[in-house]
Parts: sequence; structure tokens; C-alpha cells
Amino acid sequence: MAVYTDVGDEALENFLAAYDLGEVTAFKGIAEGVENSNYILQTTRGGYILTLYEKRVNASELPYFLDLMHHLSAKGLPCPLPVARRDGTVLGTLEGREAALFTFLSGVSVRRPTAAHCAECGRSLAQMHLAAIDYKGIRPNALSAHDWRSVLAQGDKAQVMAACENLWSGCHAFVEEQLTLLETQWPLDLPRGTIHADLFPNNVLFLGETLSGLIDFYFASTDMLAYDLAICLNAWCFEGDGSFNVTKSRAMIAAYETVRPLLDREVEALPLLARGAAMRFFVTRMVDSLNVPAGALVKPLDPREYAKKLRFHALAGSSAAYGVEARS
Amino acid sequence: MAVYTDVGDEALENFLAAYDLGEVTAFKGIAEGVENSNYILQTTRGGYILTLYEKRVNASELPYFLDLMHHLSAKGLPCPLPVARRDGTVLGTLEGREAALFTFLSGVSVRRPTAAHCAECGRSLAQMHLAAIDYKGIRPNALSAHDWRSVLAQGDKAQVMAACENLWSGCHAFVEEQLTLLETQWPLDLPRGTIHADLFPNNVLFLGETLSGLIDFYFASTDMLAYDLAICLNAWCFEGDGSFNVTKSRAMIAAYETVRPLLDREVEALPLLARGAAMRFFVTRMVDSLNVPAGALVKPLDPREYAKKLRFHALAGSSAAYGVEARS
Repeated sequence: MAVYTDVGDEALENFLAAYDLGEVTAFKGIAEGVENSNYILQTTRGGYILTLYEKRVNASELPYFLDLMHHLSAKGLPCPLPVARRDGTVLGTLEGREAALFTFLSGVSVRRPTAAHCAECGRSLAQMHLAAIDYKGIRPNALSAHDWRSVLAQGDKAQVMAACENLWSGCHAFVEEQLTLLETQWPLDLPRGTIHADLFPNNVLFLGETLSGLIDFYFASTDMLAYDLAICLNAWCFEGDGSFNVTKSRAMIAAYETVRPLLDREVEALPLLARGAAMRFFVTRMVDSLNVPAGALVKPLDPREYAKKLRFHALAGSSAAYGVEARS
Repeated sequence: MAVYTDVGDEALENFLAAYDLGEVTAFKGIAEGVENSNYILQTTRGGYILTLYEKRVNASELPYFLDLMHHLSAKGLPCPLPVARRDGTVLGTLEGREAALFTFLSGVSVRRPTAAHCAECGRSLAQMHLAAIDYKGIRPNALSAHDWRSVLAQGDKAQVMAACENLWSGCHAFVEEQLTLLETQWPLDLPRGTIHADLFPNNVLFLGETLSGLIDFYFASTDMLAYDLAICLNAWCFEGDGSFNVTKSRAMIAAYETVRPLLDREVEALPLLARGAAMRFFVTRMVDSLNVPAGALVKPLDPREYAKKLRFHALAGSSAAYGVEARS
């Protein structure tokens, strides 16, 4: 749940004076986004989302994210479009925070995606990758393979070790071994571009089984495109009991390939990329679970889920485990 | 901010199957209500608020509140209308909670009401009092004059005394003296009916300066009508610096009287009723501020504000302090 910056009616009025939106008919804080405060705003012109950027977001990076959403929207991707003020700019300040207004997207996120949802996700991910090919913005991925060890080192060493062993005996050595393996084997020669990097089911909206929105681009960065797909395989294709549903991954990858066929070397790298993606979410969840501030509104996510996924991928062997084989 | 019960998409689907609402197009948890979890639901038929009743609400009292909203809505009051399911009932269960769906009301609450807003509030309060005259439901006010001492006694005695003295030296004796005075002088002969009992600015919606909604009826009860007005005088007519704005109270009372003229003995009782209303919010805020559970999402409101208001009313002398005089 979001940490909220409370927005007063006068502050809102002053902020909106820079826009041309008609009269406000509703304004409610919503429980969406972890790093930002978000509000639904309805005016006589339509529905919007108002986002206030809290301190964890680096303000100098906001133009990268906002320009990307503008770029993707202009190409027909269903992502929030930053709404321009009368002077043409899209960033303002509200209650001491940088703030921006976005078009409202219909749809609801699904908690238990079906194979059809997974296919929609794969197709839209590929569409996003293609649409962003000529996006000029560059943002190095701060959570890539050579960053994971230092992320984990943000936690107290003894605490991290105890927390790992608490998952299963030998888990800490397993994680260390996997970190070393990923650092040495991480591919460098795969096609790169702009990735979403956090396309979990809660960041995708559906109307029935049709995808209607991609949201929350605040981890977007420049990295390997197939790594983005590997993140989605982790986030969408495991069942609640920890088992991997290859029907879903096959559907996701096949739909991705209808838009952007994978190179053979991308297919071959999938197990390693999926292992890396699992490690990326394991290390941040582990550190977050050890550093819960007193009175925090956000319940940390359990690192156990991603430790188990990491183990699955470590045993996967080849891309066939994901329902796809290299065609060379 | 509300405590949220997380609602899954399948649970929502099952819950909505009992209604005839078309397809869901949006569903977002909102930061509204303290006792309940609230969601905005949009469907192809329109906008709704979904409320899940958390444990602090006594489920056996829900029909009283829901029937009241239905009754007031039917008489044209702009309050949420419980939406009937196909079988005609209005209460369902969702994620283990009792839950109901309401029509969505446009409007925004104002943080700093003007005299015009105060007048709108007064007028609508009187309209609500008249509209509820033939409402059959009865619910004794559990927070009336003879309850305040026992509410305060829910706090540790030494803690309460220290917290009072922390407001100003002699405050604890002042509160004790006022409690005794209110218990002995509390009027028993004023017109009674259904009161909202919590009509603070955050529970009233406006479109510009026109009132568009009265919400949050979960303190509604059977009590003296003029006491409801006294609660509003406390909630709407003090400025941020603690001063009482008699222009606002005059506007509120005058507008109330255009709909339901006060009896002389109601006017005469206003200072005492206002004092009681201040005491009612002082005691609950005091106890809440001493009993903040670890990890609470709700920041307790400061009791100091209402201790000062209590002192203002204790010194008020006559109803002239509120901009109204008895006409006998």
C-alpha cells in the first residue's frame, strides 16, 4: 500500500490551474503504487490518475519515465499518457512533491492469470519492446547481474545468512554460488533496448481476457529485451503452490514471438535470464524484509517465493523447460 | 487512512455475480473511511463504492445504517444508495467480511470550508433531519453525555491525567468539572430524531460551493437534532488557529433554520450542546491517542484541538456567541 502525501483542496486547485481540465468532480487517494502517492481525479473532461513522486524516486529520472510513456502512448501502447499543462510541460509540484497527471486506463489486474492472460502479457511486452526501439532515452538498469551482490550486502551479513538458512538448510551457500555463476555467465551479446523490468500482474490491466493497460514504468531501463521476458516468466507462470506452469510460459513466449521473434541465442539464454530475474527479486525482497521501518505501511513481500523460483531455474537445464526450443 | 482488506479478482467476481452491473472496468482501493475498507468500482453500468465492514463495526447494526441511507436517498438526500442484488438484499459477504455496494457520489470534500460551505452543510443537515422523521429505525447514541466519562476511563487513568496536563496545567480538573456539569445539565427535553453524529467536512462532498453528497453514516443514531447541529458547529466553524468564526456559524444556523426552524429552547441549549459535542470528540481522541496499536495505519487525531474547543464553549455564555438569539 502506498505511503500517502495528503493533498489539500486548495493545493490541488492551484496545481490544476496549470491544466485545462474543466471542473473537479471527484478526487480520492488510491492504494496503488509503493513508491508514490496516487489519486483518482475525475473532472468534467474525464478520468485521470494524479501521481506524487515520493522521496525514493530520483527526480532527475522523471523525464526519462514520462517521455517513455508519452513515446509508447503515441505508438498506440495502452499505457498512461502524461497530460500536458497549458505551457506544454508535464511535471508540476504539489504539496512539496513533483507531480504529474496521467490519463486513466480502464481495466483490472488479475491475481491468478490464465494462459490467455499470459499470452496477452507476452504479446504486449513485445509490442512495447518494438515501440521503444526509437526511444532516445537511456537509463542503465541499476538492478542488473553485477548489482545483486551489493544489494544483498545492504542487509546485515549475519541476518541475511540466518534468513537464508531459515528458508532451507544450505540456501545461503546456494545463493552465493548462484550469484557467482550469474556474474560470470551473464550474457552481454543479446539485443538490448528499453525494458519495463517490473511487469508483474498488478501492473497489467485487463478487460475480461483482453489486455487494456500497462502501468508503473518506474523501473524501466535499458537492458536485454529477453531479460524482460524472463521477468514475466517468473511473475506470471508459477502457480500458488510454487509449481511452474509450462502451458502458461509456452503461451507467453509464443505470443511474444508473434510480434518479435526471439533470436536463437535469446532462446538458449532463457534459463539463465530467468535465473537472474529470480535472483533480482530475491535480493531486493530479502533486503526489504530485513529493513522494515517501524510503522511502515508496506508489508514486505516474502523472499521465500523467489528463492524457490531461483532453485527451479537453476535446475531447468534448457529452454525446453519453458516450452520453447532453439530452432537452429 | 483505512485498514484494507485485500480483495482478489475471483472473490470480487463471485461477489458481483449476485448483482446486475455489467462488466467491471476498474477496481481500486481508496483511502477513505477509518472503520471500513473502501473500493471504487466502475462497471459498464456506472460508478460504485464497495464497502467491506471491518471488525469494529457491529454487523447486527448494518441494517440500521443501510436502511437509513435507502430511506434518505428515496427522499432526495444526496447520500449513497445501497445497490440491491438480484434477490433484493443489499448485504453480501466478501473476503470473510460483510460487504455492500453503493452508488458513487460526485464531489470533493473541502478542507477549509467557507461560510457558503457552512450554510450548505446546515441546510442539508436540516433536510436530513426532516427526511428521517418517519424513519423507523432506532439506534441509541452510544457516545452521549452519560457515556463520555466511561469512554475516558478506557484509558489508563495516570496516562489520561498526564496527557491532559500536557495540554495545559489544570486541564484534567477542567475536564472532570465539565464532565460533571454536562452529566447534570444535559438537556432531555429537546426534539429527537435520527442524527448523522459525524458530519465533519471530510464526510460532505461539494461541486464548487454546492453540496453534492453526505457520506459515512456509521455513527448515525437516535438523539437530539440540535446536538447534530452542535457537532457541525464544532467541526466546521473553527479556524486553523483555534478561533471561532461566528460568520460561519451564523450562516450555518441560518441555513439550517430555513429548512427546520429551531425551537427557542434548542437555541438556548446551543452553548451546552456545543460543549458536549466538543467533549464527545475530545474523549474519543484522547483515548485513541493513548491506544495506538503497533503498526497502526491510522494516525490518531490530536485531542488538543477539542480540548480548546471545549474551553471556548465553556466560556461562551449564550447562543449569541454562535450568531443566533432566542426569539421569545
